[in-house]
Amino acid sequence: MHGADFLRDLAVIMLIAGATTVLFSRLRQPVVLGYILAGLIIGPHTPPYPLITNSHTIETLAEMGVVFLMFSLGLEFSLKKLREVGSTALVAALMEIVVMIWVGFEIGRFFGWRTMDSLFLGAMLAVSSTTIIVKALSELNLKRERFAQLVFGILIVEDILAIGLIALLSGIAVNGDINMATVGATLGKLGIFLVVSLTVGILVVPRLLAYVARFDNDEMLLVTVLGLCFGFCLMVIELGYSVALGAFVIGAIMAESRQLHLIERLIAPVRDMFSAIFFVAVGLMLDPRVLVDYWLPITVITVAVVLGKLVSCGTGAFLAGQSGRTSMRVGMGLAQIGEFSFIIAALGVSLKVTSDFLYPIAVAVSALTTLLTPYLIQSADPLSRRIGSTLPGWLTAVFGLYTRWLGSLQLSGDNALAAAIVQRCLLQILVNLCLVAGVFLGLAALFESGVLAFLPSPLDHKNVLWGAAMLLSLPFLVACYRKQKALGQMLAEMTVRGSAGRYPAAARQIIAELVPLLGIGIMLLVISAVSGSLLPPLETRLVVLGVAVVAVLLLSRQLIRLHSRLQIALQETLETPPDPLKPERHGHH
Amino acid sequence: MHGADFLRDLAVIMLIAGATTVLFSRLRQPVVLGYILAGLIIGPHTPPYPLITNSHTIETLAEMGVVFLMFSLGLEFSLKKLREVGSTALVAALMEIVVMIWVGFEIGRFFGWRTMDSLFLGAMLAVSSTTIIVKALSELNLKRERFAQLVFGILIVEDILAIGLIALLSGIAVNGDINMATVGATLGKLGIFLVVSLTVGILVVPRLLAYVARFDNDEMLLVTVLGLCFGFCLMVIELGYSVALGAFVIGAIMAESRQLHLIERLIAPVRDMFSAIFFVAVGLMLDPRVLVDYWLPITVITVAVVLGKLVSCGTGAFLAGQSGRTSMRVGMGLAQIGEFSFIIAALGVSLKVTSDFLYPIAVAVSALTTLLTPYLIQSADPLSRRIGSTLPGWLTAVFGLYTRWLGSLQLSGDNALAAAIVQRCLLQILVNLCLVAGVFLGLAALFESGVLAFLPSPLDHKNVLWGAAMLLSLPFLVACYRKQKALGQMLAEMTVRGSAGRYPAAARQIIAELVPLLGIGIMLLVISAVSGSLLPPLETRLVVLGVAVVAVLLLSRQLIRLHSRLQIALQETLETPPDPLKPERHGHH
Repeated sequence: MHGADFLRDLAVIMLIAGATTVLFSRLRQPVVLGYILAGLIIGPHTPPYPLITNSHTIETLAEMGVVFLMFSLGLEFSLKKLREVGSTALVAALMEIVVMIWVGFEIGRFFGWRTMDSLFLGAMLAVSSTTIIVKALSELNLKRERFAQLVFGILIVEDILAIGLIALLSGIAVNGDINMATVGATLGKLGIFLVVSLTVGILVVPRLLAYVARFDNDEMLLVTVLGLCFGFCLMVIELGYSVALGAFVIGAIMAESRQLHLIERLIAPVRDMFSAIFFVAVGLMLDPRVLVDYWLPITVITVAVVLGKLVSCGTGAFLAGQSGRTSMRVGMGLAQIGEFSFIIAALGVSLKVTSDFLYPIAVAVSALTTLLTPYLIQSADPLSRRIGSTLPGWLTAVFGLYTRWLGSLQLSGDNALAAAIVQRCLLQILVNLCLVAGVFLGLAALFESGVLAFLPSPLDHKNVLWGAAMLLSLPFLVACYRKQKALGQMLAEMTVRGSAGRYPAAARQIIAELVPLLGIGIMLLVISAVSGSLLPPLETRLVVLGVAVVAVLLLSRQLIRLHSRLQIALQETLETPPDPLKPERHGHH
Repeated sequence: MHGADFLRDLAVIMLIAGATTVLFSRLRQPVVLGYILAGLIIGPHTPPYPLITNSHTIETLAEMGVVFLMFSLGLEFSLKKLREVGSTALVAALMEIVVMIWVGFEIGRFFGWRTMDSLFLGAMLAVSSTTIIVKALSELNLKRERFAQLVFGILIVEDILAIGLIALLSGIAVNGDINMATVGATLGKLGIFLVVSLTVGILVVPRLLAYVARFDNDEMLLVTVLGLCFGFCLMVIELGYSVALGAFVIGAIMAESRQLHLIERLIAPVRDMFSAIFFVAVGLMLDPRVLVDYWLPITVITVAVVLGKLVSCGTGAFLAGQSGRTSMRVGMGLAQIGEFSFIIAALGVSLKVTSDFLYPIAVAVSALTTLLTPYLIQSADPLSRRIGSTLPGWLTAVFGLYTRWLGSLQLSGDNALAAAIVQRCLLQILVNLCLVAGVFLGLAALFESGVLAFLPSPLDHKNVLWGAAMLLSLPFLVACYRKQKALGQMLAEMTVRGSAGRYPAAARQIIAELVPLLGIGIMLLVISAVSGSLLPPLETRLVVLGVAVVAVLLLSRQLIRLHSRLQIALQETLETPPDPLKPERHGHH
């Protein structure tokens, strides 16, 4: 029968995965490890004979595993959680990623590998494994502890940074070397893409899902969710980013919908199926000979991962004000690599910039560190006690002093409130600028795609599009300006109040005027930077600007109302908690 | 990126499917129809340009759709329900299938098509669509009505008969013509396969699932279920049957497990995803030109499906004792074709025995009849009233007489009880004989596969295997004999009791002895028929038989105990209702 080969391969994989999941749960070992081992055993490199006839199709299915893994990760991510986790997670995650990339890169250089191999190795070691940590903490029954919350926070920040890392690596791999201007442009575009898709997505997607959910039909909701997920991934591929990024972002958008819990329940089986295939496929790609040949790097890297993550995350958490014991537990918990490393390794393979041995090394190190994870977590407490008792007294005193000093830095009262408002203002300005940039970049991409070439137009397409972009951006530009004005007044209040200057009113005036003026400059700069291929000649620009100014003067109230409506809608969505799951319907559909 | 083409295709399909499900629910039309239309629109035959680059991979995914559709159908099937539905469903389904195969075959001949095309057309028209009927009845809010229960019963019987039909068609297609001996052998082997796999499966699988369920981990249960499902499909493919059959049977086996509801909930999203792909892929395979060229056959076949099913199912239901109104509603409800027809059409394509136009015709007829289904169901009542009022009085009287006469045929009291016991005895004998046959056929297949050729053995492999088969069958043979003895005594009681013969005791004795003797003859016949390539020379057979008789005499109590233990275990599983779903766990895994 047609396609029987494929079904046979899939059947072998699912059968093996099923047996593995039972066996490894029974042995109390991580099932993920079992999948990889099972893949290795049935793989093409292992005697007696390969059980998989067409590994290409299986790799395609494994890619769907990446989509669903990242989508689920996105669903568990939430902007609200991110805010709660606060600065500790950011400090620790940044520390970890920078240190580990550097450690990985140096190890690669030490073994005489190529620059690109070393760079990808660094990236592979940077991010810890959410899957494995969540499983280990649940099995040890530690999920509700304080350090576990912190670990989850760090994982969320890591996920975002890893997304940036993936985009960055793709860019570097394509351009061949590390060019700071390119890196800056890549990160800038990524930032604009993330802000625009999150803002537009959170405005549109939860409303669409709420509409679909009214039909009260699980199949319909699932197919819609899958359609949105894959459709967004399609767009992201077209923009040159990876599927992993797309799946994560659309997951994060759907995390803000009220149907979140239902979506999670519906997507879980699909994810479990494809992630099983994904991990078995990881094992399939393993060549045991590479493991034997590269036993030394594997050992070195494994030790480096455990020590490096322990020290970097632990120090990060401690510097951000956590106690020594908590910091130690955080460091121990994060000391492994997992699915993200495979995704990055696969990226290198698919871009053809890394050597063949890198992937099996990543898998081997992940397997070893995964095995160690539960023991490391359990040994955190005894170890931190022993370290505490052997530390000289003066060092303990210094550490205590640092923690207290850090506590005293916290703003309180009026100052804290003012700082929060300024922060909020800056965030809103940034988001609005990103939206403006998104409009211009989007229309520029539309122009470059050549789709419009068929449309007749009395004017030049470029000019029309630039004018349209200007018009579409007006509400955001006006909002930007208003926020900048408010920010100017706030800053004037804050800086001048404390000073003993002779002309406080004048100084205040200057600051309050200067900030929005500076803002207009920035806005013009952003617009000309993102106009790209659309930028019309100077006279056209002046005409359009003139029209825009007149439009703002005439329509300012409408523009402000439109913008504030959008903003309120966005906030509503962000603030509405997801619905609890309804009790199960029992009947057969 | 590697596999991006595939992801793009999948993304287009899921996006289109998502939009379709919303649009068609909004329009209150069957979503299945929307999927097919969407597939047609994005398909390779439709301008402006094909959106799908690699339809091969999509077809492979669509095959997974068949697996999950049939598996779900199996889960909803249950031996218990089958017994409750009783004779009405059997009569109506048999009537429908025979009539529709004949109608389809004749239509094919009328249009001058080849014999094989006509035969497959008949098979395509034979089976109604569970998916479409269930959806239509839920939407019309008629699922709880009496005729709906009857319709579901007929669908269950149809599913079984269709499974046989698929096996039969494969056999005929391979052999090239219809040979009664081959058909008999095919059906016999299919029967043995079904009985053996259901018996062994129901003994083993629910216990395994109960073990896995104790870990209380949805992912583990799902992966195990998928492993069993695909593993069984793999075995079924090796035996030369279709995946559809395998998926249905393993579904029916799992339907007897206590975790049924949980399995249904876990498998639903996977099924929904792949069945969406399946139906879109059906549309992809449609060539609109064929539809235009074959408008006449399509119209004729559509009319034939509606009228043929209405008359055959309606008459079947009426003959089995239903009222005129219920019979009319049953006939109207079943008047369409669906997923099974596509599966049969795809079978013909993959076996390369049917012409290219058959598949699009099946899809077109299915689409038309699907569209008609809700209107037909709604028109059943008015139509049956009108027919009732125009019918001449004497005919109504005859119909009434028939219904009453049929009612009087029902056994009651002692007779009903005795008939039930005899029926049960016969069933048990049949199952045991099938198990014996399964043991012999299984070991014969093992011998023919040549796996054993590597094992050294002092005796001939054949003889050893035949002896082993004999030994393994002993418990079933003993049970068979005991049931035959019991049956003999029952029959003797029943037949002689009523008769006015002069030697009732002697007659009773003769019947009571003759039946088990006849039984032994049948058992020997079955054994020699299924021994196949294993059958050793006469002297070996006699020696083994002698050993077997001695073993039975020595171990009869142990054998009986073993068999009754197995039987009790089987009955326990069959009689334990599935657990209700536990209230949802809310936490993130």
